[in-house]
Amino acid sequence: MSTGYLYEPLPDVSGGARLHLNENSAGCSAAVLSAIRSVTREQIAWYPAYSSATAACARAFGVSPDSVLLTNGLDEGILTVSLALVPRNGEPSDVVVVEPGYGMYGPSARLAGATVRSGEPGPDLSFDLDRVIAAITPATRFVILSNPNNPAGAVIPHESLLALARALPDGAFLFVDEAYADFAGNCAIPAIATVPNLIVGRTFAKAYGLAGIRIGAVFARPDVIARLRGAIAPFSVNVFASVALEAALNDRGYLEWYLHQVRQAKDVLYEGFTRLGLAFWRSDGNFVLVRVGDAPGVRQALSARGIHVRDRSSAPGCEGCIRVTAGLPDDARACITALEEVLCAAPR
Amino acid sequence: MSTGYLYEPLPDVSGGARLHLNENSAGCSAAVLSAIRSVTREQIAWYPAYSSATAACARAFGVSPDSVLLTNGLDEGILTVSLALVPRNGEPSDVVVVEPGYGMYGPSARLAGATVRSGEPGPDLSFDLDRVIAAITPATRFVILSNPNNPAGAVIPHESLLALARALPDGAFLFVDEAYADFAGNCAIPAIATVPNLIVGRTFAKAYGLAGIRIGAVFARPDVIARLRGAIAPFSVNVFASVALEAALNDRGYLEWYLHQVRQAKDVLYEGFTRLGLAFWRSDGNFVLVRVGDAPGVRQALSARGIHVRDRSSAPGCEGCIRVTAGLPDDARACITALEEVLCAAPR
Repeated sequence: MSTGYLYEPLPDVSGGARLHLNENSAGCSAAVLSAIRSVTREQIAWYPAYSSATAACARAFGVSPDSVLLTNGLDEGILTVSLALVPRNGEPSDVVVVEPGYGMYGPSARLAGATVRSGEPGPDLSFDLDRVIAAITPATRFVILSNPNNPAGAVIPHESLLALARALPDGAFLFVDEAYADFAGNCAIPAIATVPNLIVGRTFAKAYGLAGIRIGAVFARPDVIARLRGAIAPFSVNVFASVALEAALNDRGYLEWYLHQVRQAKDVLYEGFTRLGLAFWRSDGNFVLVRVGDAPGVRQALSARGIHVRDRSSAPGCEGCIRVTAGLPDDARACITALEEVLCAAPR
Repeated sequence: MSTGYLYEPLPDVSGGARLHLNENSAGCSAAVLSAIRSVTREQIAWYPAYSSATAACARAFGVSPDSVLLTNGLDEGILTVSLALVPRNGEPSDVVVVEPGYGMYGPSARLAGATVRSGEPGPDLSFDLDRVIAAITPATRFVILSNPNNPAGAVIPHESLLALARALPDGAFLFVDEAYADFAGNCAIPAIATVPNLIVGRTFAKAYGLAGIRIGAVFARPDVIARLRGAIAPFSVNVFASVALEAALNDRGYLEWYLHQVRQAKDVLYEGFTRLGLAFWRSDGNFVLVRVGDAPGVRQALSARGIHVRDRSSAPGCEGCIRVTAGLPDDARACITALEEVLCAAPR
């Protein structure tokens, strides 16, 4: 039964290991908590100002502040780009969603009035530039993709992105969602200087551990950012997000520590999956996709053991797969132990 | 020069009395601050859950939780209603904006693809039911109004709202924005049980002092709320908003204290404006509209004295008017003192 959601949120879980939403499983940095606790009763009652946080974000990514739009999580960035780039004048419009992609892309594009065309994955969930280019039409307003992708976690080469941007019709954009780029190290943001139809999205919900605060950013040329401003409420980012973003960007030590935890946790998962004879994808993100067979059953059995993972078996090319967030190595070890119990108990 | 904003935010001010955005000038309640400071690093890193805050909000307003949609400020509620009710299938659609109204109404309706029709005010900014009904067409998707209105601050009688809802074509809605109803005491929320095409919006940015946190709520029948869920990102409300809302709704004492301050501040403003020979509107909100003549000049001169008010002279029927937020009585006294200086210094 559809409950009408734009993108169906998962049921809330309480207790156990949250390895189902690719959150930072260690929490935000202590510096963020301290910044939040410094906000006064008066500041809470005022509409927020963004110039300081916008400047900090611009500095961190090496662009000018007028190339940055802070958003209420990147979900709002995706919706804003959709509303800004798809016209509501009756002209036919389509948006190409590169699969596998994040579940907000298609619904946001449709909400803006576009038809969604699928850029199908290549073999083994790889990025297939030719198939994506083949999905483009003269009515394409933008192409959206995740880099690294989700749920396989592979990085698309920068040259492929440039080729894709060049292949677009006049006035159409390439929107690169870099939600997981902190883990992979890729960054297309400097290219906005030379690629006028490139938009890059970032979220601070993943590596920075700010999912509860809701803060993302969209990067593009200033004329594009000005166009996006026409499709977003001017006070959509909350005061805690603006102070937390600055504190998080300044605490490089915590970020580096967490990225190291994630790398270790992925090694634990790879080793465990190998030992259990399961096929998996080596990932540049903070998650690993693994083929377990009865994905809904395994997800439920893991959940009963306090390990919450994501059933991704209905995504294109992901038959029989679950996705496990890689956070702290201890959680990864607990996941492997529980998975071994579940798979050994199940009739094979 | 347009900077492209959906709704132009005012320049940020620092220092002095913020009487320009109808914020709570005393800050949020201490209970809210305490609730915010109890949020942990782990909770900050998790996508928020809303069932507890939604239930608290439903309880406070006497409806069931499935009649409530929490939003990232009421700005998001206005945009969500626009996107949900205006179709993007090429059918002509219009939205009737009752003037004087809030500046987000028209831009949000246009962003959703509708033509905006104006429900002009009656004499002296009064609500003119006949003129609003005359603006309705068969293509009207919804009518939106503020109750009490802004910037005059008058409450529209409940019977007029019911008559307006009945006058709408099949499938069209009445959206009553009750942003300032805490000050006035009006509440159309119970009527959603019997008026199927009624939607009511509330913000907690004003009386509750949560403007920086971004939290609003939309009330309607469950089938309407389900339709709205299809036009909003599922995690748009941040974790601080959800804990702050519960704390704020539970702290009736602080709310009552602040409402009392506002009533006293309005009396100070009325008395001062009368003494200075200025025409003003008696207001049911936390603001007073007053005709000062050269509104841009007076606003600027007050700002130079640390008193920030809003120039509303370009709104329909508001020629020569500024709007002053009524918060703490001391701020109102400082405003009158500064206004007297400004007006006596100016050539009359």
